[in-house]
Amino acid sequence: MPKATVERLPLYLQCLQAMGDSETTVSSDVLANIAGVNSANVRKDLSYLGSHGVRGVGYDRLELCVQLRRALGLTDKWPVVIIGVGNLGSALANYQGFDPSGFNVIGLYDADPSKIGDPVDGHRIKSMEELELDIKEHDVQMAILTTPAGAAQEVADMLVGAGILSILNFAPALLKLPDTVKCRQVDLATELQILSYYQATRTA
Amino acid sequence: MPKATVERLPLYLQCLQAMGDSETTVSSDVLANIAGVNSANVRKDLSYLGSHGVRGVGYDRLELCVQLRRALGLTDKWPVVIIGVGNLGSALANYQGFDPSGFNVIGLYDADPSKIGDPVDGHRIKSMEELELDIKEHDVQMAILTTPAGAAQEVADMLVGAGILSILNFAPALLKLPDTVKCRQVDLATELQILSYYQATRTA
Repeated sequence: MPKATVERLPLYLQCLQAMGDSETTVSSDVLANIAGVNSANVRKDLSYLGSHGVRGVGYDRLELCVQLRRALGLTDKWPVVIIGVGNLGSALANYQGFDPSGFNVIGLYDADPSKIGDPVDGHRIKSMEELELDIKEHDVQMAILTTPAGAAQEVADMLVGAGILSILNFAPALLKLPDTVKCRQVDLATELQILSYYQATRTA
Repeated sequence: MPKATVERLPLYLQCLQAMGDSETTVSSDVLANIAGVNSANVRKDLSYLGSHGVRGVGYDRLELCVQLRRALGLTDKWPVVIIGVGNLGSALANYQGFDPSGFNVIGLYDADPSKIGDPVDGHRIKSMEELELDIKEHDVQMAILTTPAGAAQEVADMLVGAGILSILNFAPALLKLPDTVKCRQVDLATELQILSYYQATRTA
């Protein structure tokens, strides 16, 4: 599946879930309009799921949700660890937007001994030694990295060594990782710089 | 400039800034390798800045930084407001990755009266009434939205009414905005779902 399609699937799911339960079908035009994507793209993207709308009717909304969830792997419940419990790590631990049926935050970890044992959203912050044990014991493959930039590579190396295969990296540092590990970088500064570009061209 | 190019410029800047000061020149191959982009793309992207490397030598590193910062509008210092001071808003207020010469967080605002006056990173949380006044007084055009999903659209409408032109939206809600307003959506759940897709296909 093309990367751009994969990146739009969560958006479609979000749009469909936000629609009222009274909507049993949805046309590609309506979905396109809500998602802000053109409708030919919507139809093409959904065809990768094996989903073809009925002409004049559209897609069965709930069936499409099921297909999207299946494609996105949300029918499994992935155990996830969060490393680095500053404001951002705490925000993510409390984040209501994570699909509770798709992800299960099994622990929060920090290198700062003074934080160990502190409660955050029903968890107690654990040590980096426990992190390695937990990854192995629970067969964790996904990690969210919210350490300071300076610590990110060392922690990432440890995660990979312990068996992590997917990293969502919020640390403002580019990680060197084996090709077998998938990483999504969320760089908050980058997002603001992209907006700044458009602001600058607007006033130019 | 193509959207994909704009989105890579912050990455190039980050890579160049991370290189040691002893590196006075950089080739497109080296930059491509650090950034994880292919080198033909690097050369094409940089050509939009009017920057063409010298064959066999590459680009002047500092000059390229200046050009990137200029293109990204980072030579202006944009005043920014943050609305919604939960964990994520606090994390962003403290975020070290924001370029202090490019952005200036002038205030944090929350609708919860019990939070007004609380200190966060050298700021005191202000009310939504003050937000509207501050936007006008400081001619603020950029806002970071970290409210709960349910409040996001109402706050966004107010921001637009007050003169905001660019919104970085962390609330897990799709905003309806006029075409004149640029919005970047950072959906943390989406990022995790994209990783989940790759995890699911890996084990399929």
